[in-house]
Amino acid sequence: MKKLPLILAGAIALGATASVSADQFEDAVNYRKAAFRLMKANFGPMGAMVEGKMPFDKDVFARRAANLSALADMPWEHFIEGSDMGETKAKPEVWSKAADYKAEVDKFESAVAELAVVAKSDDQKAIKAAFGATAKTCKSCHDDFKNK
Amino acid sequence: MKKLPLILAGAIALGATASVSADQFEDAVNYRKAAFRLMKANFGPMGAMVEGKMPFDKDVFARRAANLSALADMPWEHFIEGSDMGETKAKPEVWSKAADYKAEVDKFESAVAELAVVAKSDDQKAIKAAFGATAKTCKSCHDDFKNK
Repeated sequence: MKKLPLILAGAIALGATASVSADQFEDAVNYRKAAFRLMKANFGPMGAMVEGKMPFDKDVFARRAANLSALADMPWEHFIEGSDMGETKAKPEVWSKAADYKAEVDKFESAVAELAVVAKSDDQKAIKAAFGATAKTCKSCHDDFKNK
Repeated sequence: MKKLPLILAGAIALGATASVSADQFEDAVNYRKAAFRLMKANFGPMGAMVEGKMPFDKDVFARRAANLSALADMPWEHFIEGSDMGETKAKPEVWSKAADYKAEVDKFESAVAELAVVAKSDDQKAIKAAFGATAKTCKSCHDDFKNK
């Protein structure tokens, strides 16, 4: 795995060791929001295609899935300890139930990886199913770890 | 190339055909800013390592370079025609000199792709040179196409 350990990675990313400044907490919140926003930019059009609100374009869908897959592990390192403040919808459970949160993240990343593979096929039924499975992992995590 | 054509892709992404709403322009601005922000989250720590402000960690650097490479083509589709308004630092030249802008984007993407490859090696000198070459393409494009 090229992945950095959750939480720890945030500290590395931000160059923090002993202390983290208020600016760094704000950066952490903004970075993870940026990652989710970009996910939305790719997830949205896939959803529209799956729902028939936009013509299904296999190549565009596959690219959206590849983008989502590339983005899938980018938010988590920015949930650094202490960044449960300010303009964030993250529930305290992200930190107090870190193992459960990590399990949800892993489920999402697996689903997205699968979606990116299936999206390269010509099997629209399988593509839609993989998209649905991915959407389910988003919702499941939001239910437990994100405020409305 | 899996890449969508510049500009056109934005319209596809946003599901726009004949008309684009104010909300869609705002989304476009926010999406591209999110992409640049995430680039910064990865570029920053690489810069700190290159400048010796953070210990050089080969694996972390390589992951940052891979992330930057994955993000490298994500902002451009959101520079849709008409989104030169609101909270953006994009100069009008992004649209009025679209071919020049595209050329700058291409230079950046090539430099980042090279950086991601070199970052996997053990040649720190080459890594730092590739990082410097990438930074140069950022600056060059910002000089011409981004307001201060």
